[in-house]
Amino acid sequence: MPKFMDVHHGMHGITDEALRAAHQADLDIQDDEGVDFQRAWGDPDSGMVWCVSEAPSADAVKRIHERTGHPATEVYPVPVEV
Amino acid sequence: MPKFMDVHHGMHGITDEALRAAHQADLDIQDDEGVDFQRAWGDPDSGMVWCVSEAPSADAVKRIHERTGHPATEVYPVPVEV
Repeated sequence: MPKFMDVHHGMHGITDEALRAAHQADLDIQDDEGVDFQRAWGDPDSGMVWCVSEAPSADAVKRIHERTGHPATEVYPVPVEV
Repeated sequence: MPKFMDVHHGMHGITDEALRAAHQADLDIQDDEGVDFQRAWGDPDSGMVWCVSEAPSADAVKRIHERTGHPATEVYPVPVEV
């Protein structure tokens, strides 16, 4: 299944607890779109968050993030990885 | 050790082989700055590449990437992770 990197802006002050809650909200409904959210990293100062997922499409990733209230600013396919 | 997400722009057409070679070049000299590059993902269409590392500082990450010829556009600390 294709892999994606999605990018969120504006999540200033994000905490471990808040990121875990947001990630869990995604996990709770990801099966609806066949998405598998794997990892997420956040920078409280810049408000940036990145998530790596496997999904049928970028739109599937976007729909899950929109439904859980933290829409991704950008979703990129990442077919290349080391 | 702090973790960082660095972002590269302009790497259009990046292949698995090219990303592996770039990553290996970083690994070869990363000890000079105490950096540990862990993973990297690339999107050949947008030319974006992201790397996750552990390092003493963002500047240490930048210096390694500059010396190996693929300077990072941005380096963010990512103290928050799931």
